Amino acid sequence: MNDRFLKALRGENHETPPIWIMRQAGRYLPEYRMLRESVSLWELFHNSRLATEVTLMPIDRFGFDASIVFSDILVVAEVFGFNLQFPDGKGPQIFPQLISAAEIANLKPRPVEEVLFYVKETILALKKTLQVPLIGFCGGPFTVASYMMEDAKKWLYNDPVSFHQLLSKLTDASIAYLKMQEAAGVNAIQIFDSWAGDLSAPDFASCSLYYLKKIKDALTVPVIFFCRGSSYRASALASAHPAAVSVDWQRPIHEIAAELPPSVALQGNLDPSILQGAPDMLIKAAQEILTSMRGHRGYIFNLGHGILPDTPLANVQRLVDLVRSTS
Amino acid sequence: MNDRFLKALRGENHETPPIWIMRQAGRYLPEYRMLRESVSLWELFHNSRLATEVTLMPIDRFGFDASIVFSDILVVAEVFGFNLQFPDGKGPQIFPQLISAAEIANLKPRPVEEVLFYVKETILALKKTLQVPLIGFCGGPFTVASYMMEDAKKWLYNDPVSFHQLLSKLTDASIAYLKMQEAAGVNAIQIFDSWAGDLSAPDFASCSLYYLKKIKDALTVPVIFFCRGSSYRASALASAHPAAVSVDWQRPIHEIAAELPPSVALQGNLDPSILQGAPDMLIKAAQEILTSMRGHRGYIFNLGHGILPDTPLANVQRLVDLVRSTS
Repeated sequence: MNDRFLKALRGENHETPPIWIMRQAGRYLPEYRMLRESVSLWELFHNSRLATEVTLMPIDRFGFDASIVFSDILVVAEVFGFNLQFPDGKGPQIFPQLISAAEIANLKPRPVEEVLFYVKETILALKKTLQVPLIGFCGGPFTVASYMMEDAKKWLYNDPVSFHQLLSKLTDASIAYLKMQEAAGVNAIQIFDSWAGDLSAPDFASCSLYYLKKIKDALTVPVIFFCRGSSYRASALASAHPAAVSVDWQRPIHEIAAELPPSVALQGNLDPSILQGAPDMLIKAAQEILTSMRGHRGYIFNLGHGILPDTPLANVQRLVDLVRSTS
Repeated sequence: MNDRFLKALRGENHETPPIWIMRQAGRYLPEYRMLRESVSLWELFHNSRLATEVTLMPIDRFGFDASIVFSDILVVAEVFGFNLQFPDGKGPQIFPQLISAAEIANLKPRPVEEVLFYVKETILALKKTLQVPLIGFCGGPFTVASYMMEDAKKWLYNDPVSFHQLLSKLTDASIAYLKMQEAAGVNAIQIFDSWAGDLSAPDFASCSLYYLKKIKDALTVPVIFFCRGSSYRASALASAHPAAVSVDWQRPIHEIAAELPPSVALQGNLDPSILQGAPDMLIKAAQEILTSMRGHRGYIFNLGHGILPDTPLANVQRLVDLVRSTS
């Protein structure tokens, strides 16, 4: 097994940095687009055989150093009886939407294994074939809550008590869900609290970081924290002692590295738009990151957000080759 | 004339802080919504009599300490023959979209006074009646360019030469446009480079700040810089020595104040969502800002972004009363 990724999460990687890419199993892959012609996104997420197949696509093509379960950040909402929809050309949606505090008070979780069994099956199937570590994940409670109501911040500032009740319930469900993933065999977990970066510093601490820490403390495998704007939140995120923080491109990664305790690994941070760019600009930008992180034993190469749909495959190969050629 | 706002821009305000609100002439006002029932947004922007009326609405109702010309950040595109559209429920759009470098090379500006005469007329009319300073504005070149093409960053990373040619042309047109506003009587200018915050630090410097500085250096009145994520870009923005930077809520404002040179005034930074919140939470959050900025002679109270459409009028009045009661 290629364990560079897990070594980097422990700050013990002496080789070339590991590389994987957020949304690496996605629309930029022709084999993924072909499958999607006959299968809906909802079906892909809920069918273990297909989710396994899709998870392996980018590993087979590019040999990334880590694999991530093909799933959605919102599936944990199904534990409370919500439905997910994935309308074409839009983001995911949760139905029905929450409109009252009473609904939050009445939310009761069903057993995770009964509802999200299909994720467990995907993980079990993947662990039989994968030669690289497998990353499990879920959305952060604030982010999942944001999809459950029309305006999460308006709710927070009008009824903070019920809003935090919702975050607590989502946190408990996320812990149960991620423990199931651990038991099934994932080697690490990334929590995507994508929308938390829109909060003020004190609200980020109380609505995002507090719950992320609770989730992390309940788990055994290394945990990676991510949110939009994470290059500016890296120190705050690191204060909860995750294994790693995954950062966007808005700040140079060596500046962030200089601020973090050496016990926290760092993942990032090429702008996905640069991966759509001219090869010379891509190589220059990626080389700058690699040079500035040379010798960092806890560094994992990734993009700062998910890969964009119309990214040239040849650029992805160029990037992988460049990272692999790094000493 | 109430000149607290201009005093604060010079760092010389010894009284209570001035307050105005981004998008203060907008959909949260019932008189504005009533007018919009019979007049399109395009018409409002292009009809000086109506734009003057709308500009005055929030001044009449709340007595803000500064007024801002009712216009759109994109009108400068009309100088190059582009058309603006404002579809219901969506952001503004520019037609036709740019698709080739040759089109950028061929862009030729018409004289600003011929195209944007209606903004000049609005300013002249406003200056006859206003008892508070009038702010003129435009969009930053990167932001205006972002509306002219499908994907500005993809263009930047594939053809930086033509992209910077476009930014240069927009910069020159913006200077001509803002000089016209100065000559007509605006007392200050705010440049909204809204989308520039999405750039990496070096690209922010070369694609946003470089051009903002060129514009500012060509003007005589005090200039305020703003972008999304400006609480994190405040030091970078201040390095170009604007009169002020306008910051969002993601960082506590006193932290930002501590980083800026005393010659740069500071505007912000209440989260617009809090202005939709419960009165006690609103008062607490606004009071925290006021307390932390007490005695700062270059402080201007504002939101961190524009006011949201369904903000209660009573909350706006509460906020104005609170700021006015500050010693």
